[in-house]
Amino acid sequence: MRMRDLGEWGAVSRICQLLGIEMEDCARLPMGPDYLLVTTDMMAQSTDMPPGMSPWQAGWYLVAMNLSDIAAKGGRPLCLVASLGMPPDYGSDQLDDIITGMRTCAARFGTSIVGGDTNEQGELTLCGTGVGIVPQGEFMPRKGARVGDVVAVTGELGGAAAAFYSGKGKRLMEPWPRIAEGRALSKTHAITSSMDLSDGLAISLHQLCELNGVGFEVDWERMPMSKDVPGDEVRAREMVLYWGGDYELLVTIKPDKLQEAKGAASITPLGRVTPAGIVLLSGGKRMPIERRGYEHWSGGR
Amino acid sequence: MRMRDLGEWGAVSRICQLLGIEMEDCARLPMGPDYLLVTTDMMAQSTDMPPGMSPWQAGWYLVAMNLSDIAAKGGRPLCLVASLGMPPDYGSDQLDDIITGMRTCAARFGTSIVGGDTNEQGELTLCGTGVGIVPQGEFMPRKGARVGDVVAVTGELGGAAAAFYSGKGKRLMEPWPRIAEGRALSKTHAITSSMDLSDGLAISLHQLCELNGVGFEVDWERMPMSKDVPGDEVRAREMVLYWGGDYELLVTIKPDKLQEAKGAASITPLGRVTPAGIVLLSGGKRMPIERRGYEHWSGGR
Repeated sequence: MRMRDLGEWGAVSRICQLLGIEMEDCARLPMGPDYLLVTTDMMAQSTDMPPGMSPWQAGWYLVAMNLSDIAAKGGRPLCLVASLGMPPDYGSDQLDDIITGMRTCAARFGTSIVGGDTNEQGELTLCGTGVGIVPQGEFMPRKGARVGDVVAVTGELGGAAAAFYSGKGKRLMEPWPRIAEGRALSKTHAITSSMDLSDGLAISLHQLCELNGVGFEVDWERMPMSKDVPGDEVRAREMVLYWGGDYELLVTIKPDKLQEAKGAASITPLGRVTPAGIVLLSGGKRMPIERRGYEHWSGGR
Repeated sequence: MRMRDLGEWGAVSRICQLLGIEMEDCARLPMGPDYLLVTTDMMAQSTDMPPGMSPWQAGWYLVAMNLSDIAAKGGRPLCLVASLGMPPDYGSDQLDDIITGMRTCAARFGTSIVGGDTNEQGELTLCGTGVGIVPQGEFMPRKGARVGDVVAVTGELGGAAAAFYSGKGKRLMEPWPRIAEGRALSKTHAITSSMDLSDGLAISLHQLCELNGVGFEVDWERMPMSKDVPGDEVRAREMVLYWGGDYELLVTIKPDKLQEAKGAASITPLGRVTPAGIVLLSGGKRMPIERRGYEHWSGGR
């Protein structure tokens, strides 16, 4: 079998099985009263950097995507390291821009790049690792959602997709990791499960569903849609549910603690956790949400 | 300017300057009485994997090179994460072999792979990050060598080069990180500076020299040469001084604590720290050791 047959989710699930590790946004390591959080993400020019992404934005993006994983667990970032693979004819000014983008994003979220590696490579390839920390009792796992919990998201959905198609790329190229929101939500102890939305809402709901043995019912009318998403409902659904690239948090919340969670961070309830099935409610109709989203080795979008 | 003009060492020095970080084997982060150590290394098929390296060996190598950086600082490994970039037609059996090689090396040195990322990529690209810990008082920095200190190495030199040319690749493809030796040496408080030898003895001496404002005098006759290094002295010097790939530790030792260091780990004294110049003594002659070794974007070896 080849990677294109296995698909990214198949590969990840196989690797986790071989290594005996849980599918999580970050690995966690007990460290006194805390968990040390470790997460890593790789980006390649040809598959992960949209046309028009500047080197500065690639650097920002690398740091943001790692911080987003720390945010999803309620963590505070401690530091990052980055490995940069570049071809021999890559420009040193562009290297400076990547570093500046990385440094700017890290500083914006209260952390810094403390080390790295450089490598000769056929195409521009960036690999970042983020290290964070969270009190053990405030860790927000993927596993924990219960029937009756409220499902909610931070921020807006569909902004990355709309930016891709409109050419107004800032929302797509410079995502904003929800560090403050993640920390604030984790302190409420209201969150029963959490993950980031980088691969899209639909696939994230499916992943939480498989891990928790539950279902979801979400209302189309309640989606906090980015104002740049087009009015056409078919296109809008594609962008909001299946496209990915919105670095928002998807959380489930104890129903009796919803007000506390709302007080801690700007979140929008979309629906609730059910015993089974992943259903979209729209105009009084119920329709299944498909298991697809952004996946490597499967032709991308 | 392009990467091929800047060269790897130029690039690393520029990046460290832009980020305000020290050139070290690992970044260190104060954590109670300890330092948390973080290090990352990237490998690409075309530039870092010799012909004949199996996927299992690539996995082992990735983990070993990260553990070697932790060893050089006296650290104990806590965990590793790995990002794997693969083309769409990469085989899933080979992926399994990479994972098994990684897992085997990590387990052999008392640690494990706790997370990672997969990515679609033009060529096989592996990026690992190691996290370790060391009591602050036992951290072995690169900076600290003083005139009069003894310079020494663990293990044997030239084995990786000899394995490359002889086709007997085990020494080259499955390096043995000096975790036990690094820990034992750091506990003696005899070590004034330390780094790993992955890029070669010559360039490592030059780096310690520039960082410490000192020189080195080393005896050719005392080199702990691998038995596979050929008798021809010109070829032997190339392999032992300039080739790289031996994941041994290079340390400087307080002269009055040499016996303690020797008791802690199998090391061979090569010479001593001098006020200036990097000199090889051989058959009563003194000759300069050149500033070269394994460097990306410069045509490699």
